[in-house]
Formats: sequence, structure tokens, C-alpha cells
Amino acid sequence: MEQIFETGTIAYEGKDSQTPLAFRFYDRDRMVGDKPMKDHLRFSMSYWHTMTGGGDDPFGSATMQRQWDGTADPMALSRKRADAAFEFMTKLGLDYFCFHDVDVSPESDDLARREDNLDRMADVLEEKMAQTGIRLLWGTTNAFSHPRFVHGASTSCNADVFAYAAAQVKKAMDVTHRLGGENYVFWGGREGYETLLNTDTALELDNLGRFLTMAAEYKEKIGFKGQLLIEPKPKEPTKHQYDFDTATVIGFLRKYGLEDHFKINIEANHATLAGHSFEHELNMARINGMLGSIDANQGDPQLGWDTDQFPSDLYMAVAAMIEVLKNGGIAPGGLNFDAKLRRPSMKPDDLFHGYVLGMDTYARALEIAHRILEDGVFEEFVARRYRSWTEGIGRQIRDGAVGFEELAAYARTNPALDQESGRQEYLEGILNRYI
Amino acid sequence: MEQIFETGTIAYEGKDSQTPLAFRFYDRDRMVGDKPMKDHLRFSMSYWHTMTGGGDDPFGSATMQRQWDGTADPMALSRKRADAAFEFMTKLGLDYFCFHDVDVSPESDDLARREDNLDRMADVLEEKMAQTGIRLLWGTTNAFSHPRFVHGASTSCNADVFAYAAAQVKKAMDVTHRLGGENYVFWGGREGYETLLNTDTALELDNLGRFLTMAAEYKEKIGFKGQLLIEPKPKEPTKHQYDFDTATVIGFLRKYGLEDHFKINIEANHATLAGHSFEHELNMARINGMLGSIDANQGDPQLGWDTDQFPSDLYMAVAAMIEVLKNGGIAPGGLNFDAKLRRPSMKPDDLFHGYVLGMDTYARALEIAHRILEDGVFEEFVARRYRSWTEGIGRQIRDGAVGFEELAAYARTNPALDQESGRQEYLEGILNRYI
Amino acid sequence: MEQIFETGTIAYEGKDSQTPLAFRFYDRDRMVGDKPMKDHLRFSMSYWHTMTGGGDDPFGSATMQRQWDGTADPMALSRKRADAAFEFMTKLGLDYFCFHDVDVSPESDDLARREDNLDRMADVLEEKMAQTGIRLLWGTTNAFSHPRFVHGASTSCNADVFAYAAAQVKKAMDVTHRLGGENYVFWGGREGYETLLNTDTALELDNLGRFLTMAAEYKEKIGFKGQLLIEPKPKEPTKHQYDFDTATVIGFLRKYGLEDHFKINIEANHATLAGHSFEHELNMARINGMLGSIDANQGDPQLGWDTDQFPSDLYMAVAAMIEVLKNGGIAPGGLNFDAKLRRPSMKPDDLFHGYVLGMDTYARALEIAHRILEDGVFEEFVARRYRSWTEGIGRQIRDGAVGFEELAAYARTNPALDQESGRQEYLEGILNRYI
Amino acid sequence: MEQIFETGTIAYEGKDSQTPLAFRFYDRDRMVGDKPMKDHLRFSMSYWHTMTGGGDDPFGSATMQRQWDGTADPMALSRKRADAAFEFMTKLGLDYFCFHDVDVSPESDDLARREDNLDRMADVLEEKMAQTGIRLLWGTTNAFSHPRFVHGASTSCNADVFAYAAAQVKKAMDVTHRLGGENYVFWGGREGYETLLNTDTALELDNLGRFLTMAAEYKEKIGFKGQLLIEPKPKEPTKHQYDFDTATVIGFLRKYGLEDHFKINIEANHATLAGHSFEHELNMARINGMLGSIDANQGDPQLGWDTDQFPSDLYMAVAAMIEVLKNGGIAPGGLNFDAKLRRPSMKPDDLFHGYVLGMDTYARALEIAHRILEDGVFEEFVARRYRSWTEGIGRQIRDGAVGFEELAAYARTNPALDQESGRQEYLEGILNRYI
Repeated sequence: MEQIFETGTIAYEGKDSQTPLAFRFYDRDRMVGDKPMKDHLRFSMSYWHTMTGGGDDPFGSATMQRQWDGTADPMALSRKRADAAFEFMTKLGLDYFCFHDVDVSPESDDLARREDNLDRMADVLEEKMAQTGIRLLWGTTNAFSHPRFVHGASTSCNADVFAYAAAQVKKAMDVTHRLGGENYVFWGGREGYETLLNTDTALELDNLGRFLTMAAEYKEKIGFKGQLLIEPKPKEPTKHQYDFDTATVIGFLRKYGLEDHFKINIEANHATLAGHSFEHELNMARINGMLGSIDANQGDPQLGWDTDQFPSDLYMAVAAMIEVLKNGGIAPGGLNFDAKLRRPSMKPDDLFHGYVLGMDTYARALEIAHRILEDGVFEEFVARRYRSWTEGIGRQIRDGAVGFEELAAYARTNPALDQESGRQEYLEGILNRYI
Repeated sequence: MEQIFETGTIAYEGKDSQTPLAFRFYDRDRMVGDKPMKDHLRFSMSYWHTMTGGGDDPFGSATMQRQWDGTADPMALSRKRADAAFEFMTKLGLDYFCFHDVDVSPESDDLARREDNLDRMADVLEEKMAQTGIRLLWGTTNAFSHPRFVHGASTSCNADVFAYAAAQVKKAMDVTHRLGGENYVFWGGREGYETLLNTDTALELDNLGRFLTMAAEYKEKIGFKGQLLIEPKPKEPTKHQYDFDTATVIGFLRKYGLEDHFKINIEANHATLAGHSFEHELNMARINGMLGSIDANQGDPQLGWDTDQFPSDLYMAVAAMIEVLKNGGIAPGGLNFDAKLRRPSMKPDDLFHGYVLGMDTYARALEIAHRILEDGVFEEFVARRYRSWTEGIGRQIRDGAVGFEELAAYARTNPALDQESGRQEYLEGILNRYI
Repeated sequence: MEQIFETGTIAYEGKDSQTPLAFRFYDRDRMVGDKPMKDHLRFSMSYWHTMTGGGDDPFGSATMQRQWDGTADPMALSRKRADAAFEFMTKLGLDYFCFHDVDVSPESDDLARREDNLDRMADVLEEKMAQTGIRLLWGTTNAFSHPRFVHGASTSCNADVFAYAAAQVKKAMDVTHRLGGENYVFWGGREGYETLLNTDTALELDNLGRFLTMAAEYKEKIGFKGQLLIEPKPKEPTKHQYDFDTATVIGFLRKYGLEDHFKINIEANHATLAGHSFEHELNMARINGMLGSIDANQGDPQLGWDTDQFPSDLYMAVAAMIEVLKNGGIAPGGLNFDAKLRRPSMKPDDLFHGYVLGMDTYARALEIAHRILEDGVFEEFVARRYRSWTEGIGRQIRDGAVGFEELAAYARTNPALDQESGRQEYLEGILNRYI
Repeated sequence: MEQIFETGTIAYEGKDSQTPLAFRFYDRDRMVGDKPMKDHLRFSMSYWHTMTGGGDDPFGSATMQRQWDGTADPMALSRKRADAAFEFMTKLGLDYFCFHDVDVSPESDDLARREDNLDRMADVLEEKMAQTGIRLLWGTTNAFSHPRFVHGASTSCNADVFAYAAAQVKKAMDVTHRLGGENYVFWGGREGYETLLNTDTALELDNLGRFLTMAAEYKEKIGFKGQLLIEPKPKEPTKHQYDFDTATVIGFLRKYGLEDHFKINIEANHATLAGHSFEHELNMARINGMLGSIDANQGDPQLGWDTDQFPSDLYMAVAAMIEVLKNGGIAPGGLNFDAKLRRPSMKPDDLFHGYVLGMDTYARALEIAHRILEDGVFEEFVARRYRSWTEGIGRQIRDGAVGFEELAAYARTNPALDQESGRQEYLEGILNRYI
């Protein structure tokens, strides 16, 4: 097949490479602990930002120069993009991709046509996957861009929209299943509200619960074995998004009895928009047994919207990989680069630079995090710090052997007047030695 | 008894009053719907900000001029403050107060002495309550200011601190019970973390669950009939507070099987620090049946910390009262002015101005909210907007009669291409007519 | 001419009107002090949001239903929009409008064609202005949406782009002059940077200075008597915009000797994105003699991007009108509704509701602010508070009669130990009586 | 002299050292370019956080365990702190310190006594400086903590407070001069406002101008050769601080004709609270020739107040050192650790860990930044990116040879349709190779 990108295959050349486009850290088959890098990281291409995003923003039009621009026929354009996507992934050694239905196939106001478009493109994808060995990390539907979803999808005030969204998810789940997708993601792009003046939040949240229940049932029905994931985001596009953060989503799932059916897909930039660190969100998901997958990007600490930048901050990536390793890995989830080029980075090779930046950042972070956990210095510190919970009154508390009265009696002779230092600065110094 | 404040009793004089210190809107016995204002609003004095707060901040020392300053003996100071508190409440017509143990009685490193101090001050308070008819909205303990709690109370790394906090809560609950308190509040001032590098969040959260479970058990044991409340706050003093917001707390309660034992005490300024509007938090609590009580203050939209200002914004107060009225009232909770004077407002009469500001703001908001609900204009709009859920496919969805397959079939012939307007600007115009 | 909007003329009907679309407060000819409302407020329609904005956002496509949609020929579409614009303004009684070149005439990559388009549409506008008496508050060029401006306009790294932007401003200023525009605005949509790694800020800022100097010179040359205005915004679309806020712009103008040639156009939502209150920005401009004009909208206190909502908050509007009245009015500037409908408000009559909301809010705010200043209660408080500066040592300081040595000697016997209260809560209570 | 700290002298041991308290990067005499590390970095101890700060916050009391606690006599305490300070600096190899008057000597409401206290402690400091060779980076007065300054110091509504503040600055400048201080800093802790309702901003800003003018005059008079510095901060403690950020301060200085008398002291955490990156503030000061000194700390990206953490983020420190090196160094300013331990880090050796963290971070950052500038990769990229400004139309624009008319003519044939990529991701990848 004719090459779309001028850029060739990106090779691992080690950290002293002088080649502009080369991996300096991501060496896919290098063993880190018991697994090769690629199996730890499970990198994935986001079809939307990479293949369809044009660089437009609310103040300006598209800037990105893509070789498939100008293909007028929608199906031909979709095919061209699929060619580009698989060439791109192959050149980068990406093992996975993620997509919304409308990323890979033409939208249509006629549902049957829409589904047919998707089926036809699924044929194309299936063939390319077979040829390349690239797999589907997750699929989803876009139920937020079309004006139909202006008031939400499953939380629309209009029941017909709920039905339509159901049809879209059904189809997208069918196709994800057919393509061997390992997960199916729900990001509620318009599942939120603009003003309480016109909103019945109780009904909307119940409907969201009903929708997800139907999704879990449908998954069973068709025998889809992939993991269902919910992706939290606190705001944008709506003023308040229902899936605000990990804690909110977990609480929601518990309320509707869905906690065994869904896990969380955590995006770094969504975490920080919610007022949390990325690692906080990962940690909360992990300790609740709900860490499903990751959208690996980063935001700008001074900006109040989703900038979806390629991840470059090693501190953030290391903190994330520590959580991933403590979780026993991220599979069947992965690290999906839900990241887009800055609008001024409009040339085709910038796409490669963005991915190499992200992949090298996380490869390096994996090695650092692995080393940190191997050395066990933070683990030991924490174990020592909490040692009072393994014996004596701490043990009794954990065993449910004491209540307020026993504790009050105990406290009378154990006034706990001296505390140990938390030693944050010391620990940050140690962390810096690993960076 | 000798008067402490020069300011006399504050009277309702109507909105055209020229008296500087008078109520223009709060007319305690005026009926609003089926209840007098005072029973809707259940205003409460916060003992800490009002009686002990000195106006110091991280960059400067105390400024407030209080007549009880200079009383050196701790118990004498506590008595003087109690005199001031009840005179103050009586002059303002406040029916309730709230306190932490250390607001009303001297702290001591000796637990027995500490408890004895509190008992002796409880005698004082009990007598004053009997004399004045003023009641206790809620009590609590301060388990965050003492250096003992530097790493948390029930979430401390040190089990002895958990025990000590248990002793404090036990005693504060005993006293709250004895004084006929209608609620007992948990604000986890240091229940959070500074850095994940030294923190075992899983253990800490489990311990928080254990602690609250013991509290619910102890309440049963002593026959305390008051409501237990958790007050969310997202950050400050710790970098991350576990009780981030209403959704987080509800999810936490569900996880530990505590959802029938606790409700939420929502503070306006904590809501906005969490990235929510105040009414969002009230709404989330209400629709989950968890709206317990309110800390009525306001923050500054440009500042990133808890400013605890007296509430003056009518929009915020009206939105809050709409939620309260829809909730069928706030009892057994109330509106506690967890508000402090700006540091430059250091004269005793500023305290009265602060409370009059807050009380008039909420009295006016109550009337406006009542009128809005009586007129039903927003309710009707919402009912009409969601009418598709009362019949046809919407009804079937709610009845669980359909799944994805039926909905997909339905959607094929019901493409939901036209949506009604949400009409936010129209509704905001209507709201403004009520302000 | 055939009517485009079904909505008829909006009349003033007083505050108890039951008509959904009527002015309840904006009574254009009612005298407030020495001027009719309309001359105080000088309301203006923003051509872009009102006539061309479609409601798309980064997560979804256009929703707005406009009667001129579907007009394929660009010039015909521009004419249709002009018809709509003047019908709309006439029906609302708007006296002014503001535009970017590309709002009123078709964009073109051919500069001569672009200019010709604008000239032809200027003919159309001129005729309509003559027919209706509607005037041009300000014109400007759009030098930020086209990909050419991806790295900035006058601050582009590419000198050809500077030249192109100059051509655009020249032409837009010519047309503004021809149409009797009372102001010309510079909003540096892409005058900022994404990362210091690739940016020469010193050169870019010097170039911005050069550009504005040329603009001032060109204004002189063509005899344009309108006011030149710079509109600050702190961020968005670029990570850092050079014209961050009023203080930054004033400092910039002083550096380049331009302070006598430009004033400031302050947008409410830009103020809050910069971490200021709206009134802070107005106040800073006013006390520096630089308050030029206002973009009257509002942001959402919980959202970190420019939401451009129609202004409804009376507190904000009153604070703004106090500054305007103290400024002796806003002319030759005005109140331009740089506001857009929420995406779900997609019907043509929502546009009317948005403007009525904004106009009534500011009309009411004008009356309140006028009353406040007539009563002089805050002025008197302030005068009394600062009275020490009118006599004694305060007077000497202001007269330059004393230095550190004299003041140190004075302080020895004047320790300033007692301060008066700032009485913020008292003052907020008074303010609330006016709302 | 008896040792106060158990910790011994901290040595440089290289990056593989296993000693908990050792420098791994800060090797004071190692040459980096043409200067030893210590002369590049000019590290300074902040007397306040290090010697007097107790770890209290608005929600809790002091936690820090300092060996000089319990010294009741104020002068004896001051002497004990001075002993500790110089032992601490000596053990860390800190060459500089910074202080407020009240950090080193007892506060007093009697001005003469206050000055006498300071003189007596200046004797002590002078002797210790002579013994150790440690120098004074800058002195200042605290004119914000005492209740006298509740409404500001030079911007107080009370002229007597202005006079008192003048007396304080005069004395602090005298002592700074006597001790050979290389700078004198103005941080306007309460120079701002809480509400416009009670504030005459125009008078307050003029008074601030008068105050700084007197300071510049007094400096001349006494022959103090040190640099005068203003430290911006946007908010906290007041709602709005006048010295919001670097651009605001520079604009202010220009307005009052003070731009040749003051430079800027930039604090990292203040930069981020103002919505800027640290390097933005440094860059703005540098390109205006106003970069004076640095308060080296860091904030928390999720917290909205001044956390004053010890700097550990290499990205931030590298970006800062690039600006410093481009500035030709920071002298006569320095890197003052305006940083405090987290409240749970309460042991004496935590202080050492905090400083070692900060010093190693900046030492490493210096080496990285030096290497980056030596390699010139970003400089070359930037030079190439802006090459159009060195010739042709760009050159003509910079030479003032063309105006709008010439540029419009030029643009007609130079439509600037193709832009180069800004290549941010590529550049971030390069930056990461240096980290």
C-alpha cells in the first residue's frame, strides 16, 4: 500500500540518540519486572484526536494539515483515515486503538444508514487488525456532538433521545464485540446540566442508572466479555457533568447496584479539572478495586478547560505508574493517548512527535516507578508509619473489638501527645533522586 | 445580669426602616406558607466564629475587640463567653446555637480535666438554655486544631489518636444529648492527606468508616435521637479532604453501609471550593434524601480558600431556599451562620451587623423562594420539559419494559431530530423578576 | 421588507407586565439624572454572537436555528444577516452595534476580494443605518480565526502575518470611520503564547507596540475621531494572552508611549477569568482615566473558560453602573452585549429573551446605582473613612512636605494603635437594601 | 558555642550517596560556566519560616518542635534564634539570609523600644555575620501582621498608619544598610482592599506611590547602595492586592516614575496564584530589565492559597534557571527559600531536609539549564522561527520604515497563507531529555 505519512517507522535508539524522531525510552520488548514494556503500558491511539481532529478551537478554524483532507466522499474519507491510522500505529508500534463510531465511519441522520456505514467500516478495520495484529482497546459511541444530544443522551429531557442513544450504544457495543474490543467506554459528554432552573436532576440520574443497567444487560446478552468503563469529567461541555470524578461515579454505581459491572477510565486532565491530582483519582479507583483504564494526557495547571496535551510531565507519569503497578497492571485497560496537538503544531510529523513524547514519558515513568517499588523505600516508610494499626489498640479497632466506651477508657491513659513527622520534604527528596 | 454588648435588642422594623441595626425582612413570627419564618429558617449562632474567633489570619494577629478579652482564667473566660453568647442570641432572636467542645469550655491535655471542664460548662449552658428557650442545633468536637491531630483524627496513622478522637466524640455526643441537641456534626478537619507518598488511603478510609460506625452505635446506645451529619469540604486544611463533596460523602456512606445513619451538612463556601454551586450540593443531597442541615455563609468567587463570609447574595440564598422548601423544610437541621467578620470589621457591633445581614438575606430569600414555588412557574416549565417521560417510550423505559433492542427498533422510526429550547435566558429573566 | 423574525417589537411594559417578551425595566427615554436611560447605557448588539454564532462548542456542532441558515451564496448570506440584524435591533430598540469585518462580509483568502466584500457590505450597512438611525459603536477586524494567525497577528513569528494583520486593521478602520463608528477595538485574540520554549516574548511585545503605534498614526492620518480601545483577556485561546488585564494593558501602553491614544474595553467575563471582579477592572480603568467601553456579559464562577453569558446578576451590574456613573458615563463607549445564548437555547426567540434579560438587568442596575450615588451613603462613608488625608500629617504627605525622617519622628508620638472598623457587613447590608 | 541542632554539617556527597542528609547535587564551589554554583544560586535562608514559623494554620495551632521554644524572655528568644539561624546556615552552607525586623527582634507597641530592640539584635547579627561570612540578601519590615495595619500600611485609610509604616521602613532600611544588605524588599502584605464599597483605590494607590518615592529618596539620602525590590502577590491576605503580578507592578512603577528605582522580587507561588507560570513572571521581569530576586518555593496546583512549599519540581526550577542565566545571573538578588515545612513535618531535622530538597533541586536545575543554553537548541529554534524579522518586511517594520499603508500594499501580494509549525511537542520532548 502507498504510504500516507512521509515519516518512517520509529525505532528505539536509546537515550543518547541524535535522531529527532526516535524512541529514547520506549523499548517495547524490554522486560520490566515480569512483563515487557508493551504489556505494562498497552499504549493506544485515540482515533478522534489523531485522525479527525483539525485543530479548531472556539476562536479559530482548523489548522492541521492531514494528507486525507479534501477527500470529499464520506466513506472514501473514512477509508483513507483507516489507512492512515494503521500506518501510523504500525510506524509507532502502538498495539491498540480506541474509537467513537463517528471517528471511523460517516455520521448520518438515518439510523439504518449510520449503522450500515459502521458495519462497512468495521469490515475495513477488522481486516487491518488482522493484517497488523493491532487490537481494539475500547470502542464507544459519540452521543454528544449531534444537536440531537443538546440536552443530554440518556439524561435528555426527551425520551426519544434516550432511545436513540441506546440504539447508538447497542450498535457500538456490537461492533466493539465483533472487533474483539477489550473494553467499552461511557463518557457522558452531555450527561449533565446547565442550570437547575430547567432540570429534573433526580429523573435524569435515575435515567442514567437505567441506561447503564440496560448496557450491562445487553453486554451479557451478546456475550461481550470486555470491561465496561465510565470516564469521569467534572465540567465541560456542560456546566455540571454528572460523572464529576471517581468518587462520584463509584457512589453512583453503588446507588444503582452497578458496582460489579463497571470500572473507571481515568483521564489526567479531567482529574485536575475536578480539583484533584491525577494520582489521587487513580488511587481512589485502585483502592476501591475500580481502576479500569487510563486516558493518558495532561492539562495546563493555569488553564480551566480540557487542553488534552500529550503527557510530558515525569512526576505525573511516575505517580500514575506507581498506582498502575500497585494495581497489578492496567489490563484489560491500557494507556490511551487522549491527547491532541497544540493548534500551532499542524504538520503531519508533529503527530509522531506528540506520540513519541507521550510514549517515552510513560516508558521512562514505568522504569522509575518499577525501581521505586522494587526498592520499597516509600512502602517501608508507610508500613512503619502505620505500624500502630497492626497491634494493640489499632488491631482491636480493626477487629471491631472495641467501641467508643473502650476507646475513651484507653485514651485516658494514652493521650497521644507526641506525633511522628510526616517527613514530606524528605520523601520528596527521595522521589527526586529517582526522576 | 449586666449587659455585655452596648447594642440593644434588634427589632423587625420593615424594609423602609432608617434604623441602622434593625431587621428589614426577618420577622420571626410572620407566616410563610404554613410555618412562621423562624421555623423555616431555624437560624443558629456559630459559637466559634462569633465568640472565640479573633480575626487572625496566616499573615496577621487578632484584631477583634471583644469585651471578654483579657479574662485570664480559662473557666471564667468560658463563662463570660457564655454570658455574651446568650445575650447576643437573645438580642438577635436567634433560636439555636452550634458549638465545638473547645468553643464553650477550656481545652486541656488531661482528658479527665477536659471532660470535667465541658461538664461544668454544660451546666452553665443548660441553665441559660432553660432561661432563654434557646436550643442546641448541633454539637461537635474539635479534633483538628490540637497538634495531636496533625495527621488526622480517625484517619491518623497513629491508632492512639483514633482512640483519643473517639473519646472526644463520645463526650461531645453525651453533652449534645444532655442539652437536647437536635443534631451532631462530623467535620473531618484533618481527615485527609497531604501527599500520597506517606499515606495509606485505603486504611485511612476504612478507619473513617469504622469510626463513624462506632458513632452510630454509640448514638443508639445512649438513646440520642438527634441526626448525625457529615459536613463535606474538598480541601483546606489538608491538600485533599476525604469528605470532598456531597456525592463523595454519599458514596462513602453507601460503601460502609452507613447511609441510613448520616445525612449531610452543607456549607455554601465548601460547595464553591469543590467547584460546585451551593444549590448543586443542596440539590444532590435533597434528591438522595440526605439533606440534613446548612452552614449558611458565602465565599468569594475569586479566592481559593474558605472565607466564611456572612451571606448577602440573594441569588445564592434564593436558590438555597428553593431546595429547602422542596425538601419539606430543613428541620431537624437549621441554618447555622458558619460565618465570620472580615478581619477589618473588629468592633462588637459589627457582629450584630453580620448576623442581621445574614438573617435578612435568608428571610428575604425565603419569601422569594416561597413565592416562586407558589407560582410554580419553574415547576411547570420543568414538568412540561420532561413530559415525554410520563407516557409512551419514556414511560416504558421507566417501567423497565424495554431494553436496548426495543429502543434501537424504536429509534429507527423516531430519530429525535428536533429538540425544544432549554430557554435558560428566559428562565433567568423570570428569576430576576422575583429578586 | 419582509420580516425575518416572528417576534414583534419589544415594548416597555413595566415591572408587572405579564407579557413574556417585554421590557420590565428598560424604558429608553426615561430620565435617570440628567440623561435618558438609552444615553446612559448605549446598548449595542454584538454582530458575531447574535448573527453568526451557531452554538457549536469543542464537543458538538451548531444547534442554533437561524432563518438565514441555508443561504449558500456568501454575499447573499451576509445581506440576509444584515437584514436580520437591523430588524432585530429595531425590534429591541438597540441604538448601536459592533462588528468584526468577517461578521458582516465574507472572508476570502484574496485580500482585494476580502476588502471589496467589506466595502460592498458597508454600503448595505450604511443604508440601513441611515434608515434606522442605528449607529456603529465600534468596528474591528478578526485577526485570530484564520489559520494564518495561528501564531498571532502582530505578534506572529512571521513578519508577513504582521503585514497582513495591518492590512486588515487598516481596512476595518477605514470602514469603521466611513460608518461613523465611535470606537475601534483591538482584541488580541492570538496575541499571546503557548510555550516559552518557542517564543521570543520581547520581540513579540515590541511588535505589538509597533503595531498599535501604527494604528494610532493611521487614525490621525485618516482623521478618524473615534476612540481606540484595547480589550484585555488573560488566557484563551492562547495559554497566556499579552493583554492579561487592565493593569497589564495600562502598563504596556505606558511603556510604548501609547497611553494617550488608547483606552480600555472591559469585558466582565474576561475580568473574572483574570482573577478579578468585574468592578475591579472597571475601577482600575476609571481611576487611571482609561475606562473606554464595556462588553456586558457574565461568566460562570465555577467554570474556567469564557462562557459569554447574557448578564443577569444584579450585584455585578450595579457595581458596574456605579463605576460608569462615577466615570461621568461610558460615552463614547457603550454596553455591548458580547454574549451568546447557551447552546440549548436554540430558537430564534431565545435571542430576544437573551437581550431583554441583559437590557433589563442593566436598566435596573442603572436606576439602583443612580439612587445609591444620589443618596451618597457609600461616598459619605468613604469620605469619613479617609478624612485623615485631608488635614494634618495626611495632608502633608499628599503635599510632599514630609519624608521618612519627619514621619518617623511623628510616629514616635502617634502610634496609631486604634483603627476604625471597615464595616463591610454593614455596607453589604445597605447595598442589599438597594437591590 | 553549644550546638542547637543535633544534625551536623551537610556535605556534598554526589548523586549516589546513601546518607539521608547530604547534598547530591549542590556542590558549592563546582564551576558551572564561569561561576561556581554558589554564585549562580546565592541561596538564602528565610528567617521567618525557618526560625519563627510554628506550623499553625487557620484550623490548628503550632506543631513545630524548635529547640528555642519555651524561651520566655523576648530578647533572649531572639538571641537564641540568631544562634540557631547561623548554626543552621553554616551547617547547610547557605551564604545569605533575609529577614523582617520582627523575625529577628521583639515587636513592641512603643516605637522607640521597637527600634532599640532591632538595634541590639543588629549588633548580634553583625557579629555573627563577621564570624561566619554569611551575608544579608535583603531586609524588610513587617507592616502587615500588627492590628495597626489592618487596613493596610502605606495604603491605610489612616494617615497615622502611613507614618508609622514609614518609621518602620526607615529603621529597617537603616539596619539593612548597616548590615551590608544587598537588597531591600517591599511586600505589601495588606496593601490591597477587601471591598470597593469602603475603599478609595485612587488615593490608596497614589499613597503607595508616595511611600515608595520617599523610600527611594531615603535610600539616596543614607547612601544605601542595595537594590529596592517589590514583591508581587495577587491576593491573600486581602481580597485584592495592589501588586498583583509583575506586569501590574511594572505598570505602577512607570506611572509614578519609579521604574529606575525598583526591581521585582518574584515568588513562584505568587506567580501561580496570579494565574501565571513561574517562568512567565520571571520572563516578563527579565525582558523589561526588572528581574531583581527570587523567592524560591512552590505552590500546589490544586490549592488556591499560598502554600510556600520547598521547591522540588525540576521542570519549574529548570525554567526558572533558564531565565536567570539569560538574565546574566540573579545578583545582587538571590534565591531565597521563602518556604515552610508542611505542618506535619515538625521535627528539627525536617528543616534540614526541606532546605536540602530546595538546594539540590535548584543546583540540578542550574546544571540542566546551563547545558540547555550551552547546547543552544531552543535558542536556535527560536532564532530560526523569527528569522523573518531580521530581513525584508520584518526588518522594515522594526526600523519604523513602514506604516499601515505600505503594509497593506505588501500584504496584497504576500498573503502569508502557510505557517510553520510551532512544534511544541517536539520541543517538550527535547526538554525532557535534559531532565
